[in-house]
Amino acid sequence: MQAQAILESALYAEDLDAAEAFYTAVFALPLIRKQPGQCTFLRCGAGVLLLFNPKASITPDPANPIPRHGSIGPGHLCFAATTADIPLWHAHFRALNIPIEADHIWPTGARSLYVRDPAGNSIEVGEPRMWGLA
Amino acid sequence: MQAQAILESALYAEDLDAAEAFYTAVFALPLIRKQPGQCTFLRCGAGVLLLFNPKASITPDPANPIPRHGSIGPGHLCFAATTADIPLWHAHFRALNIPIEADHIWPTGARSLYVRDPAGNSIEVGEPRMWGLA
Repeated sequence: MQAQAILESALYAEDLDAAEAFYTAVFALPLIRKQPGQCTFLRCGAGVLLLFNPKASITPDPANPIPRHGSIGPGHLCFAATTADIPLWHAHFRALNIPIEADHIWPTGARSLYVRDPAGNSIEVGEPRMWGLA
Repeated sequence: MQAQAILESALYAEDLDAAEAFYTAVFALPLIRKQPGQCTFLRCGAGVLLLFNPKASITPDPANPIPRHGSIGPGHLCFAATTADIPLWHAHFRALNIPIEADHIWPTGARSLYVRDPAGNSIEVGEPRMWGLA
């Protein structure tokens, strides 16, 4: 048995409204659904970005059979971008007054940009070729 | 600008050897590379699962230009599985003596299995159709 793909990636944010505004406005991720104060689910291509309020998602809930989880502190996620799109993302972040924390060239020549979401998670936009992926 | 895909998903584990053993043995993810005590990177299809020791990844490192991050507490990730493969994953977990914390049927009929990795992260194997995805 081999896992073939990651379907859901999770980040944590106590202010889910701010997180939703960020990911819908900056990355144009479509909202799938949300439970105010609990979680916000966004689509990203063939995958899903799950945003959880860790104080809620870690709390046992007898009405919810789904295992609990919740992390405190900045997490990380990277969105894929083509070589041609990286400069466009750079301009996009600048236009939105989002500080670019790092603009890194990997040994492969692939470029990554790093910003922070409102919860402090480190969000990267990078080229799959940094991993030898297409 | 719209993000088209998630390239990297991160989980945190203080015992990276145990985490690597789990993800390579249970999910057959190929090891890309690792820095002992720091991080372990595994491939999953068109994406990458990053495992970080949060105590190391959150610590400022003047030699490393990459923004720091690191979360404490159980995170979450879901691997995609076909309808036909879910029962095979169930048998696979049982054969490996990995407790199945939940075996859930969603309103769409999609089924999800939940286990814990050695660091306590909640790891799901589920069908993309739970999200209306193929």
